[in-house]
Amino acid sequence: MIDLPAPKPDVLARRAEILAGLQALLPGDGVITEPARVKPYETDGLSAYRQPPLAVVLPRTTEEVAAILRFCHRNGVRVIPRGAGTSLSGGALPLADAVVLGMMRLNRILEVDYANRLAVVEAGVTNLGITNHIAGDGFFYAPDPSSQLACMIGGNVGMNSGGAHCLKYGVTANNLLGLKAVTIEGEIFEVGGRHLDAAGYDWLGLLTGSEGQLAVVTEVTVRILHAPEGQRAMLAAFKGTEIAGAAVDAIIASGIIPVALEFMDKPCIHACEAFAHAGYPLDAEAMLIIEVEGSQQEQDMLLGKLKEICSRFDPISLKVAQTPEESLAIWKGRKGAFGAVGRISPDYLCMDGTIPTGELPHVLRRIGEMSTEYGLQVANVFHAGDGNLHPLIMFDANDAASFRKAEAFGADILKLCVEVGGCLTGEHGVGVEKRDLMPVQFTPFELDQMRALKAAFDPDWLLNPAKVFPIEGNPALRPAA
Amino acid sequence: MIDLPAPKPDVLARRAEILAGLQALLPGDGVITEPARVKPYETDGLSAYRQPPLAVVLPRTTEEVAAILRFCHRNGVRVIPRGAGTSLSGGALPLADAVVLGMMRLNRILEVDYANRLAVVEAGVTNLGITNHIAGDGFFYAPDPSSQLACMIGGNVGMNSGGAHCLKYGVTANNLLGLKAVTIEGEIFEVGGRHLDAAGYDWLGLLTGSEGQLAVVTEVTVRILHAPEGQRAMLAAFKGTEIAGAAVDAIIASGIIPVALEFMDKPCIHACEAFAHAGYPLDAEAMLIIEVEGSQQEQDMLLGKLKEICSRFDPISLKVAQTPEESLAIWKGRKGAFGAVGRISPDYLCMDGTIPTGELPHVLRRIGEMSTEYGLQVANVFHAGDGNLHPLIMFDANDAASFRKAEAFGADILKLCVEVGGCLTGEHGVGVEKRDLMPVQFTPFELDQMRALKAAFDPDWLLNPAKVFPIEGNPALRPAA
Repeated sequence: MIDLPAPKPDVLARRAEILAGLQALLPGDGVITEPARVKPYETDGLSAYRQPPLAVVLPRTTEEVAAILRFCHRNGVRVIPRGAGTSLSGGALPLADAVVLGMMRLNRILEVDYANRLAVVEAGVTNLGITNHIAGDGFFYAPDPSSQLACMIGGNVGMNSGGAHCLKYGVTANNLLGLKAVTIEGEIFEVGGRHLDAAGYDWLGLLTGSEGQLAVVTEVTVRILHAPEGQRAMLAAFKGTEIAGAAVDAIIASGIIPVALEFMDKPCIHACEAFAHAGYPLDAEAMLIIEVEGSQQEQDMLLGKLKEICSRFDPISLKVAQTPEESLAIWKGRKGAFGAVGRISPDYLCMDGTIPTGELPHVLRRIGEMSTEYGLQVANVFHAGDGNLHPLIMFDANDAASFRKAEAFGADILKLCVEVGGCLTGEHGVGVEKRDLMPVQFTPFELDQMRALKAAFDPDWLLNPAKVFPIEGNPALRPAA
Repeated sequence: MIDLPAPKPDVLARRAEILAGLQALLPGDGVITEPARVKPYETDGLSAYRQPPLAVVLPRTTEEVAAILRFCHRNGVRVIPRGAGTSLSGGALPLADAVVLGMMRLNRILEVDYANRLAVVEAGVTNLGITNHIAGDGFFYAPDPSSQLACMIGGNVGMNSGGAHCLKYGVTANNLLGLKAVTIEGEIFEVGGRHLDAAGYDWLGLLTGSEGQLAVVTEVTVRILHAPEGQRAMLAAFKGTEIAGAAVDAIIASGIIPVALEFMDKPCIHACEAFAHAGYPLDAEAMLIIEVEGSQQEQDMLLGKLKEICSRFDPISLKVAQTPEESLAIWKGRKGAFGAVGRISPDYLCMDGTIPTGELPHVLRRIGEMSTEYGLQVANVFHAGDGNLHPLIMFDANDAASFRKAEAFGADILKLCVEVGGCLTGEHGVGVEKRDLMPVQFTPFELDQMRALKAAFDPDWLLNPAKVFPIEGNPALRPAA
């Protein structure tokens, strides 16, 4: 379980006055206080934690966001920015004395500029909403988190979200051109723009992935890409996870960059097959889904090379999709993986860490050993090409000891990631979930220096304050008694 | 001309004591004070400015860098980090009261890890030195600034350097995995590592391109890539610069990403042809050099498509290299472009700005008009695919009025870049050259916020202080009388 900072007594005491002030700034239905309507905002995708906020505000414009932040700053009120609330690390978890700043009403697509291959959208536009808007003209927005139907581009920026296709196209940071954002003092500013390079410091990069702690993003200029002529997937099944890991290495070392390179281990294959009947090889210890794109000719050439590479690793089976339908069939099980694991074990923790790809075989072996030690099942499904692991640790939520064991197992996996030269996070961010593990990755000086960057934007630690850094030792945050 | 901050009188007064302190930290030949040996450090690639420093120090290790910085911090001494001194924006220009911290003795390649496709090198290793070290094993480091024979990776990080091949591979920031660096207080820290993602804030990105103002980089972990089987270029000549600009747009919009997409206008074509006899079409108003890479089959496929696209724009000539030798011939003139322009006009300013690629035709027309207005010739040669312009403004250095006109013309071009939604810099950084233009791009609040980031690392403004931001209005820097 996690500690939250002690609520500020003066803010709780002035609740009525603060709500009246907010209502004056957002006339109509922009301030939500009734418990039943506040309820959906009490938690996010990391549903293990839940906390009602002081209130929820739903502005419609950058100027309204600025007015709210200026008011909260003047009144010492903490603010939790929130998109669709799909964060898997508790990035949008409220605090009892905080205002949740819901961004979903800033949902306009402001401009699409095909000549410069960019779109300007408000923070509350959904990830898939961008692609849907431009797909008819042959364009798409590349990062594709699993939650793309719901998650909002502002949240994607805050968490630097990834997805299955990030191996080729990079994460959110690689697909952004500019931001409009508002500081806690209500200053509206712009970073980046319609060009690739930046003068001065790279604060576009700094803001991306800063988990709503530095400023509130209200508009995003994204790079859009010309959609490829088509894509096709292949499935390669192997006799061991380490062999499959070696095949991943060989593919990457060949210089081919597939659009996606997904890894599933035996427990995950079985769960997905039982759920989706995708025709997955049940005798395999591990399988890869590899997708390429381009013209028919390019697809043939790349799939031919990939088939040749995979055959060096004594595969159980190799299946190259000949049609888009066969591709969809290959993907069908993978896309439903989390749901499939949910059928075996209603409760699981989805971890998210990154390792140097060369460490895949070693790390998979260690995770297997830990699974035995903890007596908890684990299914591995992940973006292998960029070393982004997503072990799913199954536990029983009705058994508190089982949950604690799962948390400890998860922490051990993340520590292992750091130990082999990797990183605590992949694409889900730190949030509250991994906050207390940050000292595993960083020295006290490094954490202090990051806190100094936070303070350069928000000296009073009002913006999403209980996330990213351990509360303990932070003079701006007192742990709750 | 540019203003430098007033030297600190107490530092000048204590010069002997400070030099003795530095000598104690770097026994042997690590401290250089004789004017003849200091001379090469008085300027950099932007040779318009020259200033002898207090001293030059040449450490050999991260620990020596830390000791020097700690000493300078304690004594209030300004520090100018320097790699090979190839900066074209005056990024390594000394100050009279500053110590130049030359990094060229940190020149070891510490590790090459092919399984994880990375190399760990010290800051003073040259850009090309990395590729030379690994080329025999079929790998390379992608960013390729024109100065790659001399320039050092630490300076590349400071300036976020690019190069002709950045269209496909990105700039330095896109090819970094981690840094070891030292703060002005002598704290050694690490950012990033052997993995793609970062936990917490993206301060790897923030440090990259921070022009030596936040910390001194001593070790760099770079992504290395598997070399393609081969590459081939084509040359396409057109009847107008706007037509060539439209062809660039069409290529990018097609979804093909060539490795390089270079643009030369008529003055540049003529200068290069006279110099290199590359067989360039002298009747063309503009030409493109387009390079692709991959297997022979991929090259054929991509060049076929590119030829088809270019032929839609009524080209004067289209020449596709059939052999590596023919490719080299096509590149020969371009590679010597700066030297070729130097033969026509011994003095020229090389500008560096970025625009949305869709604005190419408009911006080229305006530069031509300004050339007439100022009565100064300009040759345009640039990385068209990513909108990074390099107009070369020719002037006569023996005529002070001509230099001032060239500076004003250059500033007008950069203002135009900002006006069309672009950026003051491309790959050369801000340095002293574009420092006073920063308010054209950023609001006072935005500049203040960037200064707050600087102060979060270096509150006394000791690290490379006279760069990036206007001196005027900065309470930490008093302009020289």
